[in-house]
Amino acid sequence: MGSAVENVLTLDTLNPNVIELQYAVRGPIVIRATQIEDELLAGEKKPFPKVVKANIGDCHATGQKPITFIRQVLALCTYPELLKSNDFPADTKEKAKRLLDGCKGHSLGSYSDSCGLNVIRKDVAAFIEERDGHPSDFNDIVLSTGASDAIKSVMTLLLTAKDGVNKAGFMIPIPQYPLYSAAISEFGAHPIPYYLNEKASWSLDVSELERAIAAARPVCKPRAIVIINPGNPTGAVLTKENIQKIIKFAKKEKLFLLADEVFQHNVYAAGAKFYSFKQVLMELGSPYNKMELASFMSASKGYMGECGYRGGYAEVINLLPEVRAEYYKSISAKLCPPVSGQVVVDCVVSPPKFGDPSYELFYEEKNFVLAKLKENSELITKFFNSIEGITCNEVMGSMYAFPRIYLPEKAIQAAKAAGQSPDAFYCFALLEKTGICTVPGSGFREEEGTYHFRTTILPPVEELKAVLAKFKDFHLNFLAKYK
Amino acid sequence: MGSAVENVLTLDTLNPNVIELQYAVRGPIVIRATQIEDELLAGEKKPFPKVVKANIGDCHATGQKPITFIRQVLALCTYPELLKSNDFPADTKEKAKRLLDGCKGHSLGSYSDSCGLNVIRKDVAAFIEERDGHPSDFNDIVLSTGASDAIKSVMTLLLTAKDGVNKAGFMIPIPQYPLYSAAISEFGAHPIPYYLNEKASWSLDVSELERAIAAARPVCKPRAIVIINPGNPTGAVLTKENIQKIIKFAKKEKLFLLADEVFQHNVYAAGAKFYSFKQVLMELGSPYNKMELASFMSASKGYMGECGYRGGYAEVINLLPEVRAEYYKSISAKLCPPVSGQVVVDCVVSPPKFGDPSYELFYEEKNFVLAKLKENSELITKFFNSIEGITCNEVMGSMYAFPRIYLPEKAIQAAKAAGQSPDAFYCFALLEKTGICTVPGSGFREEEGTYHFRTTILPPVEELKAVLAKFKDFHLNFLAKYK
Repeated sequence: MGSAVENVLTLDTLNPNVIELQYAVRGPIVIRATQIEDELLAGEKKPFPKVVKANIGDCHATGQKPITFIRQVLALCTYPELLKSNDFPADTKEKAKRLLDGCKGHSLGSYSDSCGLNVIRKDVAAFIEERDGHPSDFNDIVLSTGASDAIKSVMTLLLTAKDGVNKAGFMIPIPQYPLYSAAISEFGAHPIPYYLNEKASWSLDVSELERAIAAARPVCKPRAIVIINPGNPTGAVLTKENIQKIIKFAKKEKLFLLADEVFQHNVYAAGAKFYSFKQVLMELGSPYNKMELASFMSASKGYMGECGYRGGYAEVINLLPEVRAEYYKSISAKLCPPVSGQVVVDCVVSPPKFGDPSYELFYEEKNFVLAKLKENSELITKFFNSIEGITCNEVMGSMYAFPRIYLPEKAIQAAKAAGQSPDAFYCFALLEKTGICTVPGSGFREEEGTYHFRTTILPPVEELKAVLAKFKDFHLNFLAKYK
Repeated sequence: MGSAVENVLTLDTLNPNVIELQYAVRGPIVIRATQIEDELLAGEKKPFPKVVKANIGDCHATGQKPITFIRQVLALCTYPELLKSNDFPADTKEKAKRLLDGCKGHSLGSYSDSCGLNVIRKDVAAFIEERDGHPSDFNDIVLSTGASDAIKSVMTLLLTAKDGVNKAGFMIPIPQYPLYSAAISEFGAHPIPYYLNEKASWSLDVSELERAIAAARPVCKPRAIVIINPGNPTGAVLTKENIQKIIKFAKKEKLFLLADEVFQHNVYAAGAKFYSFKQVLMELGSPYNKMELASFMSASKGYMGECGYRGGYAEVINLLPEVRAEYYKSISAKLCPPVSGQVVVDCVVSPPKFGDPSYELFYEEKNFVLAKLKENSELITKFFNSIEGITCNEVMGSMYAFPRIYLPEKAIQAAKAAGQSPDAFYCFALLEKTGICTVPGSGFREEEGTYHFRTTILPPVEELKAVLAKFKDFHLNFLAKYK
């Protein structure tokens, strides 16, 4: 009994799925960036005064201001004493009262149902109906702790609890948002990578889907296909025709559709337009309009960027009633998503209407943010394509650019010697020299022999220009060094 | 291609772990209670005017008012314009500014680190140090989306990703809070039930732990022991001696300690006192003070009852550094817990100090809630023990009573005929006759041949008395009917 303690958890006894799991957006380079911030604080001399975190779509962190309407409604719901104040527009008070009426005990501090407050689910359904021109049933809406939570909950339904060739397979785009590969690792499921076509604006070819699933069928049980539109990290926006083809492919292969549509407000390119999978499914009519589809949305992106509130939702259609009951049961042990995050979702799906006192300011703020992002998206696309050794598809939407870097052979050898992937080697060098923190393309997976990095397009334009100038210096020096 | 759609998900193809999962606190009886609420709204005649939801510890839903200090700090953080107002005490403004200084871009809308804001982790560590008289390192503090999220994250580390006798086993008390059994089902892990001793105030006998683990060793790989103190659903509070014995048992059996201490503020019985596992571990000294322990805390219980904000944290000590790194990596894909919930946690661990402008009101409100709960705990214990066919251990702490009901043989037969467990049969009858919604003991698991239900002690005392009177009528009629 007096003997020394042996650890229960060691790298040998730890859940191997946890060891397997990687989430590059907060991976080793971000851990190093945070160390550098601490070193700067401690007075260490660096060739830069601060770290620029271009690794994550964290809007408010890069200077974007919250939308006043959202924060006023939130403040009123949080501290209803403020309903007596004259400093809040009438429509914010009305919304706050309506939402509090939907909360048990009129408090954001009570649990909501596990699917969220019904008053908000109904507002979400109305928003979707208006957006798509097709009915949406609020019973299909499930609010969540950010979109990530909803995505993992729906993926959980699709697991098989079996091993080997009976493992659940998830088709994921390459490059992908690493939440998907992380969840697949954690669940011990099987990734089925399909490659986006970089040469054609990161478009999605159905022939590649056919290839990918044919390769996977002998080794796992394909269950679902993940589509990210607008694309993360690619910034691509799918055409309606492309979506139709994907839906037809999914039907043929009996796949559940998982549509990550969190960037639906973030479309910048001339001629590009966001089409929801739900809308295209409905337009295709029978039998496609009976297919199972989960579409995910977040309060963290768009023009609001309220990441910290962890608001999100899924619309999950065409589940069998008994399956839907199991789904709702499966999320009940989580109790409920944060109610303040649900309030943010409500403000996004049910913003001020023409004539409301908050209308003008709301659209002024919203349009300002989106115009700025559009300006940055154009600036960044042009910038990267103007530099030797870099190409970059147009940032049509989302909040990221994913430029391809053509690294000299000597750099690739140096990376290998350092035990790093070549793009990680490049991104770490960029961080140490300039303080700019990006995410190596390998964290999103990429075609063999190609190298990329992901950067957000969020910083204010003047800051962005300065950052890009520093980047260019670094890049040209890097090329020269390894020529 | 034109053929009808076959559903991807049916009860045959759905993840079987999801089908297995049960969470009684929001189970079938609660679904029925919500239907009844709708029926009442639709004008249906019932023998009662409203449903009393005694199934869940949802404080604000049952009329408890939020703590003013918490909501003022939250409102200021949410809408910093309010910092200019004269209607907020200086200490609430100071705290709000300090917390916003810890947020990127000074906004609750930016992501925090996955472990939470450092400023709050440090306040949590200071709270634990003050509580226990032993050091706490803020690097061991992980904020979470309610305690449930932290519990599942730590349990995830302990899984083996293996089947059969190599499945991870978790020792759980019976009766238990069904989050544990639900998580074990979802993970496909193995429950190792140990029975609390109802005859001795739901105490925890080490001989029973020995029996339980001996029975489990041939069929799984025991990895951890869950202890809920104060008890849910039992209301029992462990003595220091009892905790010492549990720790020694865990060391002998090489188990990771999972201490659910979310009711640490909720101790009512004379002579009872909350001791944290951390404190007892430290007091035992070497080698016990090197054991791996996760202690869980929530902003949803105690005197604050801020369930909807989903604030919580874990202190996880004595992990190997490389294991801690894997732990923190594993939660990074969830991005971060809701920052507004983190603010609530901060207010709980760092309340107003003597002399602060908010001090008096804060303690007035806090003491009012706790005094009311103490009054209710005594009232309920006495009440249940005064009725034929019911015994109930003293509600020493937490927010629940778990009375034992002695059902007549005819009632047990009627339940079997209806395909229900006898206590579910009883609780459904109670709901239909009186509108009182409790949770059948079978949802928490219970000793074979014993029947219970769980009820919260939350309603205001006058309402509670009326509810209990209705309950008594129902109960005596039920006994008479099946005599």
